Amino acid sequence: MADKLIIFDTTLRDGEQSPGASMTRDEKLRIARQLERLRVDVIEAGFAASSNGDFEAVKAIAGVVRESTVCSLARANDRDISRAAEALKPAARARIHTFIATSALHMEKKLRMTPEQVFEQAKLAVRFARNLCDDVEFSPEDGYRSDADFLCRVLEVAIREGATTINIPDTVGYAVPELYGGFIAMLRERVPNSGKAVWSVHCHNDLGMAVANSLAGVKIGGARQIECTINGLGERAGNCSLEEVVMAVRTRRDYFGLELGVDTTQIVPASRMVSQTTGFVVQPNKAVVGANAFAHASGIHQDGVLKARDTYEIMRAEDVGWTANRIVLGKLSGRNAFKQRLQELGIAMESEADINAAFARFKDLADRKSDIFDEDILALVNDESLTQQREHYRLLNLRQHSETGERPHATVSFAIGDTEHVAESDGNGPVDAILKAIESKVCSGAELLLYSVNAITSGSTESQGEVTVRLQLGGRVVNGVGADPDIVVASAKAYISALNKLHHSPDRVAAQG
Amino acid sequence: MADKLIIFDTTLRDGEQSPGASMTRDEKLRIARQLERLRVDVIEAGFAASSNGDFEAVKAIAGVVRESTVCSLARANDRDISRAAEALKPAARARIHTFIATSALHMEKKLRMTPEQVFEQAKLAVRFARNLCDDVEFSPEDGYRSDADFLCRVLEVAIREGATTINIPDTVGYAVPELYGGFIAMLRERVPNSGKAVWSVHCHNDLGMAVANSLAGVKIGGARQIECTINGLGERAGNCSLEEVVMAVRTRRDYFGLELGVDTTQIVPASRMVSQTTGFVVQPNKAVVGANAFAHASGIHQDGVLKARDTYEIMRAEDVGWTANRIVLGKLSGRNAFKQRLQELGIAMESEADINAAFARFKDLADRKSDIFDEDILALVNDESLTQQREHYRLLNLRQHSETGERPHATVSFAIGDTEHVAESDGNGPVDAILKAIESKVCSGAELLLYSVNAITSGSTESQGEVTVRLQLGGRVVNGVGADPDIVVASAKAYISALNKLHHSPDRVAAQG
Repeated sequence: MADKLIIFDTTLRDGEQSPGASMTRDEKLRIARQLERLRVDVIEAGFAASSNGDFEAVKAIAGVVRESTVCSLARANDRDISRAAEALKPAARARIHTFIATSALHMEKKLRMTPEQVFEQAKLAVRFARNLCDDVEFSPEDGYRSDADFLCRVLEVAIREGATTINIPDTVGYAVPELYGGFIAMLRERVPNSGKAVWSVHCHNDLGMAVANSLAGVKIGGARQIECTINGLGERAGNCSLEEVVMAVRTRRDYFGLELGVDTTQIVPASRMVSQTTGFVVQPNKAVVGANAFAHASGIHQDGVLKARDTYEIMRAEDVGWTANRIVLGKLSGRNAFKQRLQELGIAMESEADINAAFARFKDLADRKSDIFDEDILALVNDESLTQQREHYRLLNLRQHSETGERPHATVSFAIGDTEHVAESDGNGPVDAILKAIESKVCSGAELLLYSVNAITSGSTESQGEVTVRLQLGGRVVNGVGADPDIVVASAKAYISALNKLHHSPDRVAAQG
Repeated sequence: MADKLIIFDTTLRDGEQSPGASMTRDEKLRIARQLERLRVDVIEAGFAASSNGDFEAVKAIAGVVRESTVCSLARANDRDISRAAEALKPAARARIHTFIATSALHMEKKLRMTPEQVFEQAKLAVRFARNLCDDVEFSPEDGYRSDADFLCRVLEVAIREGATTINIPDTVGYAVPELYGGFIAMLRERVPNSGKAVWSVHCHNDLGMAVANSLAGVKIGGARQIECTINGLGERAGNCSLEEVVMAVRTRRDYFGLELGVDTTQIVPASRMVSQTTGFVVQPNKAVVGANAFAHASGIHQDGVLKARDTYEIMRAEDVGWTANRIVLGKLSGRNAFKQRLQELGIAMESEADINAAFARFKDLADRKSDIFDEDILALVNDESLTQQREHYRLLNLRQHSETGERPHATVSFAIGDTEHVAESDGNGPVDAILKAIESKVCSGAELLLYSVNAITSGSTESQGEVTVRLQLGGRVVNGVGADPDIVVASAKAYISALNKLHHSPDRVAAQG
């Protein structure tokens, strides 16, 4: 039987660290359930010690995911590792992933530690983690740029102390496939106890080679775990794309000869969920999950060229979960049908009151939009207005008007805490007028970095618009997402959502990897 | 001195073939000028024989580009090659690129030819082309999946007949770096006269490895030309990204040891121009040109992590042309300043009347938006309303209103040919109402595949919204792009633009490669 390749998804940890991609506990939980449906082997659910929010999210995910191993990141110190172990207690299978930088640059500039101090700390951290958890992964951060002799010593001691997985990050995306593959092979050969651990690759995409580097680490280097994210989400140019690396291993099974546990038909649903939740769009010419990746899947029929489909397509759209939008519900659907669909989508509501609120919004949407797709349901539960009673800023009403030759004008009523406000403004367009009206009372001073709108489902002018608003204030970046059949309303929702995210205190430690 | 690596850009040919990415002659000309500023070695300007429009575009580009070689694609037949040569006549340096499929699958299913027929046709085509042009490139389509013995024979005869460049396409994006590199090396070794041609790589990104495959073709295979596109534009998952492959060669010069002629500071301007012109968005986590690729470039300051920039960044944002938006013009700028900026941006207007029309629109925009950036100027000249007098559908006026609890309503006046129409409709939102109003008179029956909005410049609520509307009708897909500070107006412009594109007859032959 062929070797098994372990797919370690870090969308919820390394992906979520991307500026603007932070997610709430409920959003993470929903994505974790989808990752479980996708049958990834390991879900890195977060970095428990980085914030209370992250701790709660890891704990919640550990409590519901049964099929995949749930992992938390932890710096190489006892406090971080204890927090990770605590958050992972409810897990059916848990892993602690501890890391410390080993490159000269990172040790000196970031850690301000000597190599010997790093060596000691790595040793003690793995020892401590292994006493709390049978499954321990160790990563030397910026490993690919580390001195090989020193790195070998650190990895040897990590394995001796019980690390079961050794992960070699190309933290800055500097590698080239044959070099990275050779580096992993060299480490495995030189580290005397290398056979006692599973070797893993973790590549960033700064030079566009994360997928090829990861695969070289596997094929040339002998690694048997790939760390990746849905849509290649991650800081800067992101991480290795799960969808690309999985489909490469599957499509070129003749070459890689490895078994995968992943259910590839869940790839496109996972991609859409992550994109909708974070507001990070997937470009049309993105491999596997882009709208153009399979010409015919987006309803495009090319003029005569495609006499045989396999002339130009090496994968089948169905195999990665591209299907025509399926009408799942409509205005005649009842509460039970709605509740059942939520369950099928893996969306757990905390209380009957939440289900009732969601159902009310569903009926409202169904009044305006005849066909309700899964994507609409997802947008609906993502919508913060559902949970607005808990939010600081809440949208109540809006009115806007524009006409050629006149300046667009908007009136918005919204609540700040318990106080209702009505504000009006003109602007360059209705959206500008609305944002200015809100800002005139809120006075956040936040800078608008990005504004984008995407239709949630295609094939109909009745599609909902999904708006992403990215705000920056004092070094923090947040994305607000809002969906509505009316993009002007969706814009107001997205802006309010971003303001609420800014309103919550962050207090989070950042990690790289 | 190190070897020179030739950068062959095919944004205007293979990129433009992407469904929805088709461009007008003026748009292509503008991009060709930017490619020349980028100092790419070869610009594949189009496929002259595929349509009159393509012929004219290639000819126009050949007439203005002086620094780069201008190339036209041609199938392996005399008519195609003659058309290419004719279109290229004005060029300072011209190249004819002829191709024919050599894989068993493509020969049988697409060409319905025997290998011997293909061999003969390749031979005669290169001979014919070489009589018309000194610089001839030959590509065996789907070369990577072709029988090696047969392929060697075809390549040998192509070189014997005078092909100066031999390009090996991985047409379907099936390759893995070490295999593709080895394949090129094997061909170069086995083809007896291989030393008489420059070898070239052409990779597609279906498995996310186009960049790594191209580089393996260079490093392992000994190729010295890479074919690529801006933003990786191209059919399905697109082509090798110019920005990624160029920055990989530059950043890892220690490994590749090759010289590049490219002016990398023109990369981001080229990326923006292609994205704005085609309406293909670049995702934030896209390497080099994505908004997140350089954390600090988008104004993002990470909390304390970045103690030293090179801890996490292997390239400098400035080196690829990321700069803060520069205010270039404002409402007090005169016609001469505007005209000069057009020239600096490489935008040539056909007549004084066109400049006057553009200037009028500029003044109109400056009345509504205090700071005018290069991106705004580009959007303004991309705007079809400039050339609306030549267009079938023209937007005249619009009025819309929406209010919570009421159904949004819009009234649009527009011209179809010489007749003015006024239409009104309600809809799920103002945009939906406007599109429905227009459609009520036009009755195109086109299906809306995609609707997206992006802010053209960030950092201000005053940014213009750029709307892309993708329509499909009878197997054809077109993108309409419209920009305006008011996204509702921009949506109407984009829809009208898409309708005009559908109105023009296509009559174009498709090529792959």
